[in-house]
Amino acid sequence: MSPASLRAGNLIRGWMEDAGLRTWVDQLGNLHGRVEGMNASAEALLIGSHLDTVVDAGIFDVSLGIISALSALKVLNVNGMMGKLRRPIEVIAFSDEEEVRFHSTFLGSAALAGVLPVTALQISDKSGVTVQDALKENSLEITEENLLQLKYDPGSVWGYVEVHIEQGPVLEWLGFPLGVVKGIAGQTRLKVTVRGSQGHAGTVPMSMRQDAMAAAAELIVLLESVCKNPKDFLSYDGHCNDISLESLSSSLVCTVGEISTWPSASNVIPGQVTFTVDLRAIDDMGREAVIYELSNQMYKICERRSVSCIIDRKHDANAVVCDSELSSQLKSAAYSALRKMAGDIQDETPALMSGAGHDAMAMSHLTKVGMLVVRCRGGVSHSPVEHVLDEDVWAVGLAILAFLETQL
Amino acid sequence: MSPASLRAGNLIRGWMEDAGLRTWVDQLGNLHGRVEGMNASAEALLIGSHLDTVVDAGIFDVSLGIISALSALKVLNVNGMMGKLRRPIEVIAFSDEEEVRFHSTFLGSAALAGVLPVTALQISDKSGVTVQDALKENSLEITEENLLQLKYDPGSVWGYVEVHIEQGPVLEWLGFPLGVVKGIAGQTRLKVTVRGSQGHAGTVPMSMRQDAMAAAAELIVLLESVCKNPKDFLSYDGHCNDISLESLSSSLVCTVGEISTWPSASNVIPGQVTFTVDLRAIDDMGREAVIYELSNQMYKICERRSVSCIIDRKHDANAVVCDSELSSQLKSAAYSALRKMAGDIQDETPALMSGAGHDAMAMSHLTKVGMLVVRCRGGVSHSPVEHVLDEDVWAVGLAILAFLETQL
Repeated sequence: MSPASLRAGNLIRGWMEDAGLRTWVDQLGNLHGRVEGMNASAEALLIGSHLDTVVDAGIFDVSLGIISALSALKVLNVNGMMGKLRRPIEVIAFSDEEEVRFHSTFLGSAALAGVLPVTALQISDKSGVTVQDALKENSLEITEENLLQLKYDPGSVWGYVEVHIEQGPVLEWLGFPLGVVKGIAGQTRLKVTVRGSQGHAGTVPMSMRQDAMAAAAELIVLLESVCKNPKDFLSYDGHCNDISLESLSSSLVCTVGEISTWPSASNVIPGQVTFTVDLRAIDDMGREAVIYELSNQMYKICERRSVSCIIDRKHDANAVVCDSELSSQLKSAAYSALRKMAGDIQDETPALMSGAGHDAMAMSHLTKVGMLVVRCRGGVSHSPVEHVLDEDVWAVGLAILAFLETQL
Repeated sequence: MSPASLRAGNLIRGWMEDAGLRTWVDQLGNLHGRVEGMNASAEALLIGSHLDTVVDAGIFDVSLGIISALSALKVLNVNGMMGKLRRPIEVIAFSDEEEVRFHSTFLGSAALAGVLPVTALQISDKSGVTVQDALKENSLEITEENLLQLKYDPGSVWGYVEVHIEQGPVLEWLGFPLGVVKGIAGQTRLKVTVRGSQGHAGTVPMSMRQDAMAAAAELIVLLESVCKNPKDFLSYDGHCNDISLESLSSSLVCTVGEISTWPSASNVIPGQVTFTVDLRAIDDMGREAVIYELSNQMYKICERRSVSCIIDRKHDANAVVCDSELSSQLKSAAYSALRKMAGDIQDETPALMSGAGHDAMAMSHLTKVGMLVVRCRGGVSHSPVEHVLDEDVWAVGLAILAFLETQL
């Protein structure tokens, strides 16, 4: 809803109309472009992506999904095929200011899926401006009542497809431009606070210390070990069966991204250390088992060191499993696109777990979801340089076209 | 040189005169009080402590040494014994704004010992005011020339004694009010920078990470292990002989007091982590051996993890060994003071290593040094509450009196 995001919205609205779509902006700022095809009352296929950007994200993190859908639709339009689509196709550029402004993700998609609490309108940014205020500044009058009316009728929707940059290194490592997403990982965020005994760095013997920093370091080393080899730490009986252990071993990731010491002076033994833990896995039961086992072992380490340890659970989101039919259609579409570009393709399109959050998570509450991911140069997209090879942009456009052709 | 430290200076000057001392303030703001005794040309005994305080230090960190010396001298004065002192006694309240204002310690004592570089006058505080400016504001005109003239003639000085709070938990743990210092630990400060590869917390598999935080945690755990059990890490041949290993095992301490990650977001794998290391030991050769071995092992860990590691040596100070004659006199004096207070004393006065920095470190360049430390309630003095038991204040006063009586 910043000038830049409004400009991007206007640009994309023009592209939508150019591709033959009827467009409108809803009261939350989501931009829609729809073509009815042969049967306006058939269940619609939704293709979505978010418009706004995260700080430092690659330019394609924003709009690659939208651009590829619109390119494919334009090809159908130019070839006079739009009227032959078996079902309505609706492209949605979701509006939300994401982490950057409101520290709240997927507002736009959550509203359409009917899972956005009305309280979300009152979330405020750093300067106290609420989501509702920000929308009003852009002549968008959202009220609690019309928020509820934004929800799509599940009976009117066939499925939801999203295209996104992988934001990870796996496709690049596999040497494959496109992949489908098996599922989106569930996530738990913890805040761990270790309290020891502050002291003078020169005068407290090692054996008499309750050093919060040394304890935190041991906890972080443990955390990494558990997430690298969950099999070594979890028992088969009780929490985990063989299947979830297998899926855990391949999907579990955990990260300590922030840490702070108190009082934070080079010559003082820290009395307190706080750090964040971000833990994700495709298997919700497995994730719970890891957190249970990890917490137990962390408490044991803290007890042995005579420091206290508070593990605060800040956020939980369950995993989303992508629809197998949609995934297999996307897989075939990706394969045929790559064959068109490169001739013979040896391998199957890879099926990945996605560890990043996506609008598909919200949309899964409304309808079946499928996702296509695109290889990302240099492994991660959180950097301001361009990340997708030109040929991969082509590949994803062709793949969406091939997928839409299955709807003719 | 703040209003508070000027007030403290005036108060102490009054006490000095009340105890029968001739007083003056030198161009660096050091406050002197001197009695000549029987022979003004004999080598003088200097008793010193610093006036200024560190943020959050106990009130006695400032002036316990001065107060106990002045109380003892007042007793001699009242009893008409001042004229019978075999040598001049000079009490010096050293002026320096310490870490707090100029991030520079022991300016006052370093000047008297002749080891203060003239460039120290140009050190500036946060607002750009130099030491020289700050002194001028208090009508103290220090120039490079008269700085050099502040140095005492080593031939005019017999020895230097300092009283300080232990700032550590050992005396409390031993249940003993006073101790003598065997030596003041040498110190090395390192800044360690670990550089890995920044990435999305959800999308980079554990096996493909170059996580700077996990690497830093492993380095900190290693650091603690080495400092707890140097014997397990150092080889007898090469760096260390048996004696330095023994002394290392009992004196080595190391601390990670500050740590920061970059970019510091809970959902981003840190690309860089920086932390401080404060390492102290009574044995300089042993300290060097530890740093050598530690650095090697740190580089190995970083190599195994494919992260880079820069170990930056920010500061080094060699250990100071206290004079055995002075120490044994202080030990006897402490013992006799405690006998006076508590009757029969079972144990010998403990002899400790001091891990904190003291003016005695600077003064050791001028003359032999000895130190008495006082038990500190709660183990550490870096807290604003009162830390010394009233009876321990009495004990140290009596001990200094007993020590001065050996000079009659």
